[in-house]
Amino acid sequence: MTTIVPAAAAADPATARGRFRAGVAVPSSGWAPGHTQANLVVLPRDWAWDMLLFGQRNPQPVPLLDVTDPGAVGTVLAAGADLRTDLPRYRVWRDGELVDEPTDVAALWTDDLVAFLIGCSFSFETALLDAGVPVRNIEQGRNVSMYRTDRACRPAGRLSGPLVVSMRPVPAALVATAVQVTARMPQVHGAPVHVGSPADLGIADLDRPDFGDPVELAPGDVPVFWACGVTPQAALMASRPPFAITHAPGHMFVTDVPDAAYRQL
Amino acid sequence: MTTIVPAAAAADPATARGRFRAGVAVPSSGWAPGHTQANLVVLPRDWAWDMLLFGQRNPQPVPLLDVTDPGAVGTVLAAGADLRTDLPRYRVWRDGELVDEPTDVAALWTDDLVAFLIGCSFSFETALLDAGVPVRNIEQGRNVSMYRTDRACRPAGRLSGPLVVSMRPVPAALVATAVQVTARMPQVHGAPVHVGSPADLGIADLDRPDFGDPVELAPGDVPVFWACGVTPQAALMASRPPFAITHAPGHMFVTDVPDAAYRQL
Repeated sequence: MTTIVPAAAAADPATARGRFRAGVAVPSSGWAPGHTQANLVVLPRDWAWDMLLFGQRNPQPVPLLDVTDPGAVGTVLAAGADLRTDLPRYRVWRDGELVDEPTDVAALWTDDLVAFLIGCSFSFETALLDAGVPVRNIEQGRNVSMYRTDRACRPAGRLSGPLVVSMRPVPAALVATAVQVTARMPQVHGAPVHVGSPADLGIADLDRPDFGDPVELAPGDVPVFWACGVTPQAALMASRPPFAITHAPGHMFVTDVPDAAYRQL
Repeated sequence: MTTIVPAAAAADPATARGRFRAGVAVPSSGWAPGHTQANLVVLPRDWAWDMLLFGQRNPQPVPLLDVTDPGAVGTVLAAGADLRTDLPRYRVWRDGELVDEPTDVAALWTDDLVAFLIGCSFSFETALLDAGVPVRNIEQGRNVSMYRTDRACRPAGRLSGPLVVSMRPVPAALVATAVQVTARMPQVHGAPVHVGSPADLGIADLDRPDFGDPVELAPGDVPVFWACGVTPQAALMASRPPFAITHAPGHMFVTDVPDAAYRQL
C-alpha cells in the first residue's frame, strides 16, 4: 500500500481498470476512492479446492469476495473487467518462488486457472478515518507494517502457513472505536485479532516488519493487529504450488463495489 | 423443525450426540438448548468443489460453518463427534432421488466423502424470542413454512437451484427489530431476504408451503422471508449428483458451539 495519491488517478473504477489495462503500472491506492480494492490469487484447478477451503477455514485473513469458474476472466465484482490485464502489476510464482512481475498475464492464462478475489484493508482504513481514528501509516506516508506471526492458519489440503498480520498504532482512547468500526467489516478482515503485546504473536521487534515499512507509534499509541491479505501469499510461498499468479503488493484489483457495501448494520 | 421439546432431551451437546449415536431417532429441536445445530450435506470429492463454491457464492442460504477433509468423520464444531452416527436421522440420495432415511451412515462412508456443516435458523429463533419478537411457528407447535422462490441461486459448477426461503409472520411494529437481530447473525442465514409481498418471490399461496407446515399470520403480522438451509438440498435434487447424504429434516447435527458465538457485535 502506498499513500501518495497520484495526480493522474482515475475516480471511476472502469476508467482506472482501463488505464491499468493500457499499461499504467503504479500502485492502486488513491484510484477510484470509495470503491473496494481486492487482493488476487490465481491457481490451477488442481489447487483451487485447497485455496477455497483455506479461505473457508481462515475467513479473517482470507475473506473471499469472489471465486471464478475455471478459465473465466471476468468477475461479478466489476462489469466488463478482465482479470488478465486490469491490475497494474502482477506477480508470477513457480514452485513457490517469485519468477516475474509483469503488467499483464494474458499470455499465461489458461482454461485451467481459477481466480480468487480477497478483501483488503484499504476498505477499513477509510472507515477508521471516517470514525476519527488516525491511520499512522497514511500520516507518515508509508506502507503499513506487516508481520508473520507464530500462529498457524488452519491448514486446508496442501495449503498451510502462518497468519500474517498488519499493525496500526491506535491511540489508547480510540482502540475500542477501532475494534467496533472494523468488526462491522468482516469481508475486509474484520475486527483485530490482537491488541497490544506483540511478543504474544511471536513478533520480536515492531521496528522490523516482515513486509511493508516500519510505522512509528505516537506517545500513547497501542499496536493493534489485524489479519492481513498477505496471508495467502505466505501460504503459497510455504506450500509451493507449481504455478500461481497474484497481484504485486499495493497493485490491487479495483472493483465496482462501494466500500460501504461491506459495512454491516 | 419440530417444536415439542422431548422430556428426555439432553441438555449437554456431547450427551445429545451420544443418545443419537445410540439410536434415538427424534427431531433435535429442544436438545442441548443454546447450542448451535447444523444442517449436513455430504458429497463425493468430485462434487465437493461445486458445493464449496455454491456456499461461497450463496452465503445467505448456504452459510458454511465447517467443511471436512475427504474421509474425515470429525469436525472442529464438536469435540469427539462422529458425523456418520451422531445425527438422529439421515437421508441418502442417489442421482438426486431420496432412497433411504437411516439412523446412521457408517456403512456408506468412504474416504472419498466431504461433509459440509451449514448454519440453521434454530439459532436466530432463540435470538428473536430473546428480543421480544414472537415466533409464530413455535407458538402454533408447527414446523416453519418453507417455499421455493422464483429466484435462482448463483450457480457453481454443476450445482444450481432455486433460493428456498423460510417465512415467519412478524408483527408490523417488530419487523425492524427482527431485521436487526438476525442481521447480526450472518452465519445462520442473517437478515431477511424479503419483507412482505410473497408474490414478488413467486409464492402464490402462503397457506401451501413447499416444505414444512402452514403457519397462520395473526392480525397485523407481516410475512418475513429468510434464506433457508433447505436450499442446498433443493440444489441436490435439481442437479442430481450420483450420491449424497444429508440430515433428515429437523434431525440436525448438535454442535458444541454456543448460539451466542454466531451473534456479531
